[in-house]
Amino acid sequence: MAGEKPLTVVTCTAPVNIAVIKYWGKRDEELILPINSSLSVTLHQDQLKTTTTAAISRDFKEDRLWLNGEAADVGHPRLQSCLREMRRLARKRRGGSAGAVVPLSLAYKVHVASVNNFPTAAGLASSAAGYACLVHTLARLYGVEGELSEVARQGSGSACRSMLGGFVQWLMGERPDGKDSIAQQVAPETHWPELRVLILVVSAEKKPVGSTAGMQTSVDTSPLLKHRAEAVVPERMAQMIQFIQQRDFEGFGQLTMKDSNQFHATCLDTFPPIFYLNDVSWRIIALAHRFNAHHGKTKVAYTFDAGPNAVVFTLADTVDEFVEVVKCSFPPGSNGDQFLKGLPARRASLSEELLSAVVLEPVPGAIRYILLTKPGPGPQSLDDPSLHLLGADGLPRPSA
Amino acid sequence: MAGEKPLTVVTCTAPVNIAVIKYWGKRDEELILPINSSLSVTLHQDQLKTTTTAAISRDFKEDRLWLNGEAADVGHPRLQSCLREMRRLARKRRGGSAGAVVPLSLAYKVHVASVNNFPTAAGLASSAAGYACLVHTLARLYGVEGELSEVARQGSGSACRSMLGGFVQWLMGERPDGKDSIAQQVAPETHWPELRVLILVVSAEKKPVGSTAGMQTSVDTSPLLKHRAEAVVPERMAQMIQFIQQRDFEGFGQLTMKDSNQFHATCLDTFPPIFYLNDVSWRIIALAHRFNAHHGKTKVAYTFDAGPNAVVFTLADTVDEFVEVVKCSFPPGSNGDQFLKGLPARRASLSEELLSAVVLEPVPGAIRYILLTKPGPGPQSLDDPSLHLLGADGLPRPSA
Repeated sequence: MAGEKPLTVVTCTAPVNIAVIKYWGKRDEELILPINSSLSVTLHQDQLKTTTTAAISRDFKEDRLWLNGEAADVGHPRLQSCLREMRRLARKRRGGSAGAVVPLSLAYKVHVASVNNFPTAAGLASSAAGYACLVHTLARLYGVEGELSEVARQGSGSACRSMLGGFVQWLMGERPDGKDSIAQQVAPETHWPELRVLILVVSAEKKPVGSTAGMQTSVDTSPLLKHRAEAVVPERMAQMIQFIQQRDFEGFGQLTMKDSNQFHATCLDTFPPIFYLNDVSWRIIALAHRFNAHHGKTKVAYTFDAGPNAVVFTLADTVDEFVEVVKCSFPPGSNGDQFLKGLPARRASLSEELLSAVVLEPVPGAIRYILLTKPGPGPQSLDDPSLHLLGADGLPRPSA
Repeated sequence: MAGEKPLTVVTCTAPVNIAVIKYWGKRDEELILPINSSLSVTLHQDQLKTTTTAAISRDFKEDRLWLNGEAADVGHPRLQSCLREMRRLARKRRGGSAGAVVPLSLAYKVHVASVNNFPTAAGLASSAAGYACLVHTLARLYGVEGELSEVARQGSGSACRSMLGGFVQWLMGERPDGKDSIAQQVAPETHWPELRVLILVVSAEKKPVGSTAGMQTSVDTSPLLKHRAEAVVPERMAQMIQFIQQRDFEGFGQLTMKDSNQFHATCLDTFPPIFYLNDVSWRIIALAHRFNAHHGKTKVAYTFDAGPNAVVFTLADTVDEFVEVVKCSFPPGSNGDQFLKGLPARRASLSEELLSAVVLEPVPGAIRYILLTKPGPGPQSLDDPSLHLLGADGLPRPSA
């Protein structure tokens, strides 16, 4: 071990994903095993990603963690689960039996720094990208390969779906130990090149109920959630996979909207009730339905997670028009030139007919901005050492 | 018939009811047969009532109708159903066989005038009181007795529950002809003298989706509604009847809130989704839960129908305090002295502890007014001829 470098550093990135068949409710809190399968689209890291650097060194005194440049609690149980599990897999891979010599580096402490390139306020599931990135980075650091979505799942359920690109299902599994509760790719991100994703960031007043607490209350109190998980989702999973395989936007869009609505319905059936949508969310829903009705088919499809922001799926040929419709419906304030972030859109002129049928009662400033993106690949390793978030001393670089 | 007066006039009143186990969805559109049983509280007519005068005369040329002083379409199919059905029952009662002599008056045309003592804008189910009043008034006019909730049901489903006072269940029935889909009294209005009802009238922008169209779309598209009707409501009906019989406010209140939430959940699971609650409704829900949490038990219970207004059940000893909490949470505008209508409440002083735990972020003007009432009796006949809405000429009186 004399030749070992004083510091081993790995940096990776991982994507956000947005579920189109929703995950809500665990059958095992500890292992994070869900009550139903779910399906998501991995979003492109050019727009939304977590970057994580992990380093090990014999000189480190303790495991340490920095999130977005701030020191954070490394003792969080779920973080500890992922660390412990990755070290176990590393030991298993290198050693085999208990009597084998464990490489020194596995006993070393680890430093982890993680940053998101999007504000937490955007209400996106940053924990999914975060845990996926942590697990992927530790895997590279320890040289672990194979099925890792099961480890990411133990950090945050939906993180397992961020371990793969494109269209990903999280199979609920049946085993009590969770070994079969893993992510599988349904189709790669190249499968449906026309698909686009708009995130409509709503001007919200306050942070809603956290999803961990919320979903447990739903499992305990909602009769409708139980029925959804048992009787509705299995059929919807099969349908959704077929719609994706056939690139059937009509089917994909309708089912995406229905499943988002049903998830929020089960939140409302929870006691005390949980409601993540606000009046602006509701206006976006109504706008999408008017837009589709005007065109006589499903051209846009909304979905909402545990917050008021809308994620809208559409096809490339509809983006310019729909962005303009959103601008007219929620006229931007002083940030007009910054209203659309991410991929570009062309200025579109809307017909009077469309305007009068679709744009009703504009609400200025109700949407803060739109982020335009598309499906993307799974976690990536960065080879350029200048991108490490930790310096040679194992501490966050000033820029990070 | 020579001795018959030129004009026979009857005037009656009928109450509004508010469901605590909700009716949503028909299995037969024509006969208005529901997919589940429901249960309601009849509200007192001192605060909310419909008054209807019906008159017959050999001189009338056609059936005519006036609603709140305005001439209205007498050809409405549901109105026609009620008229036809009442004339049939009158004929049956008087005649028996088809060959019997039918009294002349049954061939006479009828004039009907109806007024509500509450604004339609209050979002209360005025059609329930309206059809109950029509059927009750025609029954008196034609001398028909017996089971009439089945006729009122054909005007508006929930109208059958306004045919009785106190606590009323509408049995869904099983027969295709609807003969067993009738209202039954669970307990009279005197059964629970401490029960109070507050209607919080929200400042809404626009009229929501009508319930007739909405519930049909729900039946056609919501998987959760079907489950609710088949698997959830039967048990809840039995529980609710027991809570009422035992005057168990904890049980009654919790189940009332849960069932309101589940009804709105099924609306959200409808496609396209229907949402009757707005941000103010949601604030009232959160306020009620904080109020109950502060007291460590269920002291108030909300329920919402097809609109944003809340109906809050509570007991007499809680009214003063809760009215004050509502005033502090939604400070009235210039109508401060008119904010509470109906039954009186005493000014209450709230503890600092309660204020800080329950009254968060007041929203001035979000509630237009509170109407305080209590359970009341079924339809009443008015004997005082000066209260007739139709004059000696069979036309609306100027005052009506």
